[in-house]
Amino acid sequence: MRFVRKSVQETPPYTPGEQPEGTEFVKLNTNENPYPPSPRVLEAVHDAAGASLRLYPNPTARELREKIGDVYGFDPAQVFVGNGMDEVLSLIVRTFVEVGEQAVIFYPSYTLDEILLRQHGAVPVIVELGKDFSVPLEAADADAKVLFLPNPNSPTGILEPQAKVRDLCERFRGLVVIDEAYVDFAEENCLELAAEMENVLVSRTFSKSSSLAGLRVGFAVGPEQLIAALNKTKDSYNVNRVSQAAALAALEDLPYAIENVARIKATRTRLVTQLERQGFDVLRSSANFVMARHPHLAASAIYKALKEQGILVRYFEMPRLDQYVRITIGTDEETDRLLGALAEIAAGGTGNPG
Amino acid sequence: MRFVRKSVQETPPYTPGEQPEGTEFVKLNTNENPYPPSPRVLEAVHDAAGASLRLYPNPTARELREKIGDVYGFDPAQVFVGNGMDEVLSLIVRTFVEVGEQAVIFYPSYTLDEILLRQHGAVPVIVELGKDFSVPLEAADADAKVLFLPNPNSPTGILEPQAKVRDLCERFRGLVVIDEAYVDFAEENCLELAAEMENVLVSRTFSKSSSLAGLRVGFAVGPEQLIAALNKTKDSYNVNRVSQAAALAALEDLPYAIENVARIKATRTRLVTQLERQGFDVLRSSANFVMARHPHLAASAIYKALKEQGILVRYFEMPRLDQYVRITIGTDEETDRLLGALAEIAAGGTGNPG
Repeated sequence: MRFVRKSVQETPPYTPGEQPEGTEFVKLNTNENPYPPSPRVLEAVHDAAGASLRLYPNPTARELREKIGDVYGFDPAQVFVGNGMDEVLSLIVRTFVEVGEQAVIFYPSYTLDEILLRQHGAVPVIVELGKDFSVPLEAADADAKVLFLPNPNSPTGILEPQAKVRDLCERFRGLVVIDEAYVDFAEENCLELAAEMENVLVSRTFSKSSSLAGLRVGFAVGPEQLIAALNKTKDSYNVNRVSQAAALAALEDLPYAIENVARIKATRTRLVTQLERQGFDVLRSSANFVMARHPHLAASAIYKALKEQGILVRYFEMPRLDQYVRITIGTDEETDRLLGALAEIAAGGTGNPG
Repeated sequence: MRFVRKSVQETPPYTPGEQPEGTEFVKLNTNENPYPPSPRVLEAVHDAAGASLRLYPNPTARELREKIGDVYGFDPAQVFVGNGMDEVLSLIVRTFVEVGEQAVIFYPSYTLDEILLRQHGAVPVIVELGKDFSVPLEAADADAKVLFLPNPNSPTGILEPQAKVRDLCERFRGLVVIDEAYVDFAEENCLELAAEMENVLVSRTFSKSSSLAGLRVGFAVGPEQLIAALNKTKDSYNVNRVSQAAALAALEDLPYAIENVARIKATRTRLVTQLERQGFDVLRSSANFVMARHPHLAASAIYKALKEQGILVRYFEMPRLDQYVRITIGTDEETDRLLGALAEIAAGGTGNPG
């Protein structure tokens, strides 16, 4: 590993969920939206497919930032747009955390935060979630530069109420990053905190509720001087022309996304009810996925049996998570197929009727 | 600047060229290709505008890496694809240079390299180019981790021959990054060095010769273990679906780009001849731009007078560069308009006949 930084050598890579390239799988493993993007988004992509692709995009995604500001109640100078939320999180680490400094992350939670910190050469302070996977407020007492709070948490799907998050932000002396990737599927959010407090950034994505995982657009809102620092460290043209146009079109057709979110939440309710009837213990999810464990069947066995039936879910071979499978909320048809397969597996079928 | 890293606070931001949003300007300031992307690229963007945008892209741009490998003679494991060459360069710094370590950059050269290093907290060793803007081989003796060599250089446009670059790479003990953003407009390149040597990465972009600045696709080729390290530090889904499809289509229609490159080179020859007739001193360019200075007129005045006539060129208020304007090679029509305006300015016109 000649030339490679020590912190990079020593950090295992982030492992994204399987992305099979055919269409043969029912894909309930990476929390994508089962419904296509808005027709207006597709129209915007078509419109962008012209001679102007020869030109660099607007460096700060001006029009999109203005629209995000309008929709969510922020000044455009309080909005940062990134190449997916991954880039937003990576830039936050590189902009605010010195090498060797500490940052708070929770366990179990989004594993990317730890990897970004370790690769950078920062020191994660790992705070264990409570027995019910709730955030302990004492985490805020850590002597750390940044605290990462995915809310709803991933992969548990559990939402911390805004009032509690506010307490956490008031108590923590550093910068709190509230990762709201899944918040459109929840009943509450923390945008108010980013508007009011000096030490809070809220990050969001177009991947989930707007069905745009393939185009990579995330954003962060918060105090102007923190946003300015992110604009300073980002690549000049970090979000391309097509992605800017598509995200803008998505915000111009919010009712479309809102309707899909409502459908997904209805399917989630139905899925949870059915899973519980099948004997599963299901964590209370505010996201577009659920974590479910079976009293007798090993999660790894469920994962494998489902895969044999052409259904992909996510299995994490990690402490406290390895009893669960994480199931993305799909269409009703996909959900029925999943439930049928699970019933068969629980009944002792091999999952392969042949 | 609460919360912001010291190295970020202390580094001025990179300033990209002006990106006016109307179409009223003749835009010869940011080295974009004056010709639109291939019709096959536009078709690929249209085809990508569908339901699959809801799904994450292939994490490592597998198909595109295979095609790049085919076209340039590398194994796919020797190819890294990034969100524009900016991301490739940024990742190189973050993957290979420890905070506090030294890296060699040249002056005058691409200013982004210095900014990336300083923001990261690394120490640029700035080596002055010779009187004729040539690279001094002694630069290779620096005790540094990485050496950045834009070749052709930007903004001079001057190409160092492969044989000399090979000497430099053999003499330097660290990693040499040969930034070939503009090499498609040159007579020679250094891909061979990336294939043969353990300490050489060559980076390329689809922005210039393929007219895809708006879609942000860059790549690097070189030793497999260095490429693997970049794949480890990149964001999981750093290049989106549309950009992957567009770049692939561009490589499937190479003759189109090659023809445009030939036109641009022909226009370059004509522009240089005409500029010299007008009394300009023009650096010998192997890129899609030229650096020109006038014996009597200040470059800043030329820049301003051209802008008043609706023509944007680039002016760098920096030592050794502030006598020059950098002119991107446009269409023949744009070039004629530029030459007419320059003649008028030299003749003492105000540049504004009204």
